[in-house]
Amino acid sequence: MCESNVYLKENGAETLIMENVAVITPAGEHRFILRGLLGEQQEVSGIIEDINLMGHKIILKPA
Amino acid sequence: MCESNVYLKENGAETLIMENVAVITPAGEHRFILRGLLGEQQEVSGIIEDINLMGHKIILKPA
Repeated sequence: MCESNVYLKENGAETLIMENVAVITPAGEHRFILRGLLGEQQEVSGIIEDINLMGHKIILKPA
Repeated sequence: MCESNVYLKENGAETLIMENVAVITPAGEHRFILRGLLGEQQEVSGIIEDINLMGHKIILKPA
């Protein structure tokens, strides 16, 4: 399974926003909709800092 | 393996930019560095349109 966990990095600390995200779609400036496998979704604000597919980790930072 | 293929979508047509991308890092405004498993890398220009981790597909569009 290739879902990733999405984190928000602020002041050097990473906070888990959502686990097992399958799809990430931009939703306007500095906003993204995160979608999970079971249809759950969450809209977040931020800028992509890093996408590590092997580490299953996507890091956003505050816009 | 969770690498994705990265495409550029222009005028409705998707062109493969790089296969088996493991890490994507922003490199300035509307630019990204794509890194493969073997250290190969490529810098591309564009905006993220969609990240589909289950479909192993990341779509950029022109900035």
